[in-house]
Amino acid sequence: MHTSPSGTSATPTIDLNSDLGESFGAWTIGNDSAVLDLVTSANIACGFHAGDPLVMIRTCDLAQKRGVRIGAHVGYRDLAGFGRRNMDYHPDDLRAETIYQIGALQAAARSVGAQVTYVKPHGALYNRIAHDKTQAMAVIEGILATDPTLKLMGLAGSPILDWASAEGLSTLAEAFADRAYNADGTLVSRSQPGAVHHDPDVVAGQAIAFATGAPITSIDGQELVVQADSLCVHGDNPEAISLSRRIIEQLGHVGVAVQVQP
Amino acid sequence: MHTSPSGTSATPTIDLNSDLGESFGAWTIGNDSAVLDLVTSANIACGFHAGDPLVMIRTCDLAQKRGVRIGAHVGYRDLAGFGRRNMDYHPDDLRAETIYQIGALQAAARSVGAQVTYVKPHGALYNRIAHDKTQAMAVIEGILATDPTLKLMGLAGSPILDWASAEGLSTLAEAFADRAYNADGTLVSRSQPGAVHHDPDVVAGQAIAFATGAPITSIDGQELVVQADSLCVHGDNPEAISLSRRIIEQLGHVGVAVQVQP
Amino acid sequence: MHTSPSGTSATPTIDLNSDLGESFGAWTIGNDSAVLDLVTSANIACGFHAGDPLVMIRTCDLAQKRGVRIGAHVGYRDLAGFGRRNMDYHPDDLRAETIYQIGALQAAARSVGAQVTYVKPHGALYNRIAHDKTQAMAVIEGILATDPTLKLMGLAGSPILDWASAEGLSTLAEAFADRAYNADGTLVSRSQPGAVHHDPDVVAGQAIAFATGAPITSIDGQELVVQADSLCVHGDNPEAISLSRRIIEQLGHVGVAVQVQP
Amino acid sequence: MHTSPSGTSATPTIDLNSDLGESFGAWTIGNDSAVLDLVTSANIACGFHAGDPLVMIRTCDLAQKRGVRIGAHVGYRDLAGFGRRNMDYHPDDLRAETIYQIGALQAAARSVGAQVTYVKPHGALYNRIAHDKTQAMAVIEGILATDPTLKLMGLAGSPILDWASAEGLSTLAEAFADRAYNADGTLVSRSQPGAVHHDPDVVAGQAIAFATGAPITSIDGQELVVQADSLCVHGDNPEAISLSRRIIEQLGHVGVAVQVQP
Repeated sequence: MHTSPSGTSATPTIDLNSDLGESFGAWTIGNDSAVLDLVTSANIACGFHAGDPLVMIRTCDLAQKRGVRIGAHVGYRDLAGFGRRNMDYHPDDLRAETIYQIGALQAAARSVGAQVTYVKPHGALYNRIAHDKTQAMAVIEGILATDPTLKLMGLAGSPILDWASAEGLSTLAEAFADRAYNADGTLVSRSQPGAVHHDPDVVAGQAIAFATGAPITSIDGQELVVQADSLCVHGDNPEAISLSRRIIEQLGHVGVAVQVQP
Repeated sequence: MHTSPSGTSATPTIDLNSDLGESFGAWTIGNDSAVLDLVTSANIACGFHAGDPLVMIRTCDLAQKRGVRIGAHVGYRDLAGFGRRNMDYHPDDLRAETIYQIGALQAAARSVGAQVTYVKPHGALYNRIAHDKTQAMAVIEGILATDPTLKLMGLAGSPILDWASAEGLSTLAEAFADRAYNADGTLVSRSQPGAVHHDPDVVAGQAIAFATGAPITSIDGQELVVQADSLCVHGDNPEAISLSRRIIEQLGHVGVAVQVQP
Repeated sequence: MHTSPSGTSATPTIDLNSDLGESFGAWTIGNDSAVLDLVTSANIACGFHAGDPLVMIRTCDLAQKRGVRIGAHVGYRDLAGFGRRNMDYHPDDLRAETIYQIGALQAAARSVGAQVTYVKPHGALYNRIAHDKTQAMAVIEGILATDPTLKLMGLAGSPILDWASAEGLSTLAEAFADRAYNADGTLVSRSQPGAVHHDPDVVAGQAIAFATGAPITSIDGQELVVQADSLCVHGDNPEAISLSRRIIEQLGHVGVAVQVQP
Repeated sequence: MHTSPSGTSATPTIDLNSDLGESFGAWTIGNDSAVLDLVTSANIACGFHAGDPLVMIRTCDLAQKRGVRIGAHVGYRDLAGFGRRNMDYHPDDLRAETIYQIGALQAAARSVGAQVTYVKPHGALYNRIAHDKTQAMAVIEGILATDPTLKLMGLAGSPILDWASAEGLSTLAEAFADRAYNADGTLVSRSQPGAVHHDPDVVAGQAIAFATGAPITSIDGQELVVQADSLCVHGDNPEAISLSRRIIEQLGHVGVAVQVQP
């Protein structure tokens, strides 16, 4: 079983992660430099759904200089769809592409004196492996075959964290401050009304709850504790960066330290 | 200066290398299993001009099981052109793509308990960097940034071997048994008549000369010694495999051992 | 409702189609020239799952010279997976990619004095749209927006043929001589035992039934009439070509003419 | 010989063109809607160096609604390099890719009730074919094979316009208001100081000269008349749009009408 240290430590701490290095060739997305001033973990795209070799190296370098932890943001091979489209995969291919992408980012990191310490699957792959054991095991086996000391970041409360633990991988449970939760700890589907919180106070309040082990309120009004090691924040537009700053500020007010989880 | 050990050892030896792992998705090229029974070094495509993650892993595994040395066959990002088209590149991109491709193959190799020990650029990139110092230095710097113990395999007699040595890289000089040479040690351009030898005895004879340090005859009739650590052989069709077998046989007849060069 | 002319004409006729033009760059698949001597309709890949611009033109030219009808074999944008992996798509993207692929093949055909007269979706897309109305309508709307006189070839008995007819598209119902059918006219899933017929006589017999309007026997032993305008035959290996020749021979024995359906 | 009508009509007119539809998947570039309010010709990317099927359709629709002429902005197959890297190509491939890209855009245009009327090669291809006859003829033959009524837009004063005319293609000579010219009518290379004009008055003045047939001053101080049918303007950032507005304003002041050239 995965257990989160965040609820039990004397000084509560939480890791903040964000998707970075998503530019490609002549196309720029996001404001990586600004976001890297806020977060403690950088999920860096590996060229399959976004990113390119030069962007990967530069993003590793920016992260390294700020002491931000580097993770491989592995995705489906779908540049046109930004890795956001659910795809069927033969597990051998998915395992191999996981190995390939991690290896490419490891070399990029090494080239700037940094190293990759975790893997966070991206987009449709992230959602799929939260519950699809065949694809999940392909990713887990790919990580194990590349470097068994890499941690796997996945959806808090989803079975992939258990599957990974059972194989000997360390895990990082991720929660979403801006998403509503069902009473069973799963995310409310985006197709449902109320799935995304837009009120900054609600978002910040939920972030504090995740960081301190306090309960949040599920969409149907029940109390629920989500054990989380890391919160996902966004930086693709100025509003997103403002919201992330507000979350960090409010975490500070209640004495939560933003730092990498062991 | 690059110096080849092949002409000076008591028992002459030569390395044979071939391009492998060039299949992609549903498309198969070559007969990797048969070729891996012949060669001592496998130049494995890294997904940019050919190959895919699963093919890379499987080819590393086949090579590892036969004790064949694994090299990263890095190429231009041109799947449609198989990396055979000359391309201008910003050196930062070329350096980054070198790092990316090597890293991806390193992870593929590691996943089967093997390791990458050299880099051989492919096709148009191979030809370009033999004389274009900007692109050559980008590749050399990419190798150094990834793993400075990797050797660079390049065209015997071309300046890239000196540029690489000057940066501290070990090099492997490669010669072509089926190609005619100019008196200055450069290859006769394929656009010239007589550029490619089709007579198996001439090909085998030239291979023996490379392996023993004996002179070959240049296209204009002069004697020329080409210092070579490795010979390129092909396996993309049954005739090529037959020719490779014949070369190996005739090397054996004159007492040349086919083995990896230190 | 779709109605097939094949069961009612004085001389029974049937169209034979095959997937062609699937080579890509340096990679060759299939024996297009041999297959084009057998079939009456060529499903030509359009570069998204297979094929490239030059292969498309050459395949159109080969087809045109033999009087073989040209169809656009549109597929998911998944070269690495050969369009065989089920993918979620926003319908706007799928509609746009349908338009794009048809247009590209139309120009290729025009460049050799030929024209595209039908569209057959490929692989995972073919299977998906047989029952997924959202993706089916995206393809149908893409065809209508490009050229409403193009026919849509789809799985005999599947609702897409009705959806297309309702939008004013002409359709071609396709049957598979080597596949077992359920009593309701759907194909037995490949995951079930007995899904694929390997006995050439069974395959040829089923082809004759499709062409003459005679019943076939479903996997659970019931009689079933499948109305078909076209039969899919394969040519990716010598055995497939032999089997196709045998089907044609036996169709000839019972007086069925292989010809394009109006 | 190519002759420009712009210098001889009673009311001088000039066409303004811009590169549009260069977004790709999740990545957005440029401000197409704003630029389409300024120009009379839209060079729409066809998916090889930029653009995707949905972007192509939407850009055709925006252009059509404003009465802006649609051109196929064909480029090298190099998404990672945005078509800006010089590439060697077999002419058969280049011809085929020209046909493919035009055909794809023709269908996109047709789907919104519009049509493609010209072809402007992009980036490295544009520069290469201005002087490389082999690649130029491949593009010209590709256009002829697709639709011989399409015009070819190329660099004013370069031989490709003559090569195209000799084959029967109509041409559009393009000039660059922000680039310095040599006395022989060629562009000053960007590697030279003074190659690009930054002073808005110089840029606007040069635009007026092109439109009215008046001489400009070459980089070495000589008078030079450049016959131009179209001027290239940029819209990738707010400054570029401002500059384009200023050029249009100043053209208006001197009585030059911005309109499509016949």
